[in-house]
Amino acid sequence: MKFTDRIFKRVEPIWKSYMDHPFIQGLGDGSLDEEKFKHWLKQDYVYLIEYARLFSIGAAKSPDLQMMTTYADLAYDTLHTEMDLHRSYAKQFGITEKELEQTEPAQTTLAYTSYMLNLAQQGGIENVIAAILTCTWSYRYIGLKLAEIEDSKDHPLYGEWIKMYASQEFSSSKEDCIQLMNNVAEGKTEEELQRLEDIVVNTSYYEYMFWEMAEKLETWPVPVK
Amino acid sequence: MKFTDRIFKRVEPIWKSYMDHPFIQGLGDGSLDEEKFKHWLKQDYVYLIEYARLFSIGAAKSPDLQMMTTYADLAYDTLHTEMDLHRSYAKQFGITEKELEQTEPAQTTLAYTSYMLNLAQQGGIENVIAAILTCTWSYRYIGLKLAEIEDSKDHPLYGEWIKMYASQEFSSSKEDCIQLMNNVAEGKTEEELQRLEDIVVNTSYYEYMFWEMAEKLETWPVPVK
Amino acid sequence: MKFTDRIFKRVEPIWKSYMDHPFIQGLGDGSLDEEKFKHWLKQDYVYLIEYARLFSIGAAKSPDLQMMTTYADLAYDTLHTEMDLHRSYAKQFGITEKELEQTEPAQTTLAYTSYMLNLAQQGGIENVIAAILTCTWSYRYIGLKLAEIEDSKDHPLYGEWIKMYASQEFSSSKEDCIQLMNNVAEGKTEEELQRLEDIVVNTSYYEYMFWEMAEKLETWPVPVK
Amino acid sequence: MKFTDRIFKRVEPIWKSYMDHPFIQGLGDGSLDEEKFKHWLKQDYVYLIEYARLFSIGAAKSPDLQMMTTYADLAYDTLHTEMDLHRSYAKQFGITEKELEQTEPAQTTLAYTSYMLNLAQQGGIENVIAAILTCTWSYRYIGLKLAEIEDSKDHPLYGEWIKMYASQEFSSSKEDCIQLMNNVAEGKTEEELQRLEDIVVNTSYYEYMFWEMAEKLETWPVPVK
Repeated sequence: MKFTDRIFKRVEPIWKSYMDHPFIQGLGDGSLDEEKFKHWLKQDYVYLIEYARLFSIGAAKSPDLQMMTTYADLAYDTLHTEMDLHRSYAKQFGITEKELEQTEPAQTTLAYTSYMLNLAQQGGIENVIAAILTCTWSYRYIGLKLAEIEDSKDHPLYGEWIKMYASQEFSSSKEDCIQLMNNVAEGKTEEELQRLEDIVVNTSYYEYMFWEMAEKLETWPVPVK
Repeated sequence: MKFTDRIFKRVEPIWKSYMDHPFIQGLGDGSLDEEKFKHWLKQDYVYLIEYARLFSIGAAKSPDLQMMTTYADLAYDTLHTEMDLHRSYAKQFGITEKELEQTEPAQTTLAYTSYMLNLAQQGGIENVIAAILTCTWSYRYIGLKLAEIEDSKDHPLYGEWIKMYASQEFSSSKEDCIQLMNNVAEGKTEEELQRLEDIVVNTSYYEYMFWEMAEKLETWPVPVK
Repeated sequence: MKFTDRIFKRVEPIWKSYMDHPFIQGLGDGSLDEEKFKHWLKQDYVYLIEYARLFSIGAAKSPDLQMMTTYADLAYDTLHTEMDLHRSYAKQFGITEKELEQTEPAQTTLAYTSYMLNLAQQGGIENVIAAILTCTWSYRYIGLKLAEIEDSKDHPLYGEWIKMYASQEFSSSKEDCIQLMNNVAEGKTEEELQRLEDIVVNTSYYEYMFWEMAEKLETWPVPVK
Repeated sequence: MKFTDRIFKRVEPIWKSYMDHPFIQGLGDGSLDEEKFKHWLKQDYVYLIEYARLFSIGAAKSPDLQMMTTYADLAYDTLHTEMDLHRSYAKQFGITEKELEQTEPAQTTLAYTSYMLNLAQQGGIENVIAAILTCTWSYRYIGLKLAEIEDSKDHPLYGEWIKMYASQEFSSSKEDCIQLMNNVAEGKTEEELQRLEDIVVNTSYYEYMFWEMAEKLETWPVPVK
């Protein structure tokens, strides 16, 4: 059994819970409140910057030229192609580039990105790969499920989102990440695999909380701000 | 004006809100539910390990021998003296060392420690100092305020806690941290000071959320675990 | 006075000594032994991989999106454009891609890259910029000086090398690095500037030793290998 | 076969070459020029600071409390006990504490410490352990060999040095490092073991060069300084 098959068994119940979440359901049937989606768009922009940072840490920790190039390419693509897409999508919702850049991370966004970046810096390259896996893979999982819903891809506001994450192009990013994970898992002890699996589980919880943050328009749960 | 005076002005409203928090009020008047305190004790044990890690990062990033020694001493003292105190205090509440060690971090604990560790690794020594400051300083602030309450220090369960953080010995740790912060702030640009101040503000929010986590016996806000 | 003007005053005597070095003189008058140049080519290939790693660390430590993008672009360009150029230039000298990739770093190469990477990881973004500066800037300095020598740019073996580093395109990389250095130096204390200047001075020594390594076909000065 | 047995087979020829080195021979028969030993003392002081930094990185990267405590203790002991011994030994040779602290690292010292610190930060905890191993283990190896020479331990200048590294106390540090290495090697793939072995081999070369640096009173091999 591939390591990612074992991982999938462990995270599948968590990922299934995303599909029952009101935000995802609203994306699928088109009923999602636009304000909630705009909150997601802004927070995801902040998230993407830190995701690109994560890829750069991957490049910095790569043991060989080939892997370094893979990570440097992923950082480059995120900072150019993916964030451009994000900016133009945000524009359709009336969010300017300036607004995107001035977005303060909500507490869940900061918790999630800090968690990944801390472990990525603390450990070796395997931590980077494990931290990256959930976001790319679970968006693909959600995209495919939502694409099965009739008319979902034609929705004037959310159809583009669904098509993007259900696309063949996005699928290949997911496959790259899965392969990197299986390669690095080879020959690791059970204790090490457990640690890597825990990273994927924790980021899966963070993904749930990220949907919840968007749904609740969450910023920070503190009395004084 | 010292940099820490400026910081205090900014975080004082947040720290004042701690004093109104039910957990802190329960510590002060002795009415705190023992289960909540035990939850705090276990989560704080996990926190202390990561706090010692933070001091070790400080030693690893110190520009000179004197500063490196200060941080290595703080790591050593946390791992020996402070965690021993914690273990013996926990024992009084019937919590074994094994239970302490098997404690899973609640989501707030993980968010807070990940935040500090990420920035400490990403930046230079100034980030380490800024990340460390709030916990030590605000516990001293709370300890002194609670010690003013009549009979609070004689409470059979919580008196020891109040006496520890109101003690002269703990005060000197706080003073060390404040001095390190002012030294490192010297000659920094306003932009850099702003960034460091933001770290202290964010950790002040996390401290509030940590009290809230203890009060609510919080673990993880996810449907599947 | 710009910080880089101050730096130039300090490193100019070291850089002038490069021009008297037999390797550089041989490049300029075309008399350089091909074996020495091939040794340089192979060691520089190893160096470039670590230089790309350095840019990735820069992206990982950038405080804002714009700077992160600058560094990620530099990593990407090094790993694609610059290393491609290197590979095709090496091919002209009969060095295969496999040979390039199997090159063991000479002791000077390892010392130089380890020095930069250690400081880049240990400190904040300013260390990364300071570590990067010398190589790009001094190659431009050497390129321009050699280009002034009659017929140097038409040499069948080394003319291409001289034209590359004397080119307008390469000049703009140098200008980018100089500007990043001056921006980050703003508002730093004299003590911090001193530390950054020392990094540029030390990498300037390493550049001299790198020429010496190529000239002497140096690998490792140990009796058993 | 333990991983460290396999390592020893690979590094033994390099370590044997130390015993033929004039500096070590001079330590053993007492004929060593005092100036050379003083150069070693000063450079080793600089080295020890970076070795303590390495232990702190180990604490910062430890996956559990027990390992973190081991590394934090090693950092603490190096910064207090070992450097105190060094300072008092240096005093016997007329070297003041100020002189020790103002020592500029020779090029070999900087190359060696940068190499270890770069890899320790770049990788996971296994890199830290591999980087630490050679110095402690090979000094023990040399100490025991020199202690066998008649009267070597009674030499007025160098006897103390030989007794220290041949002592039971120092032996236990070595045993700790060997055990950490074997524990971490368990279940690693051949590719990973190879990478760790290479770190021990490279630091073994650096140890040779460190003796050479002391023997030749080396600072920096550059024309302008």
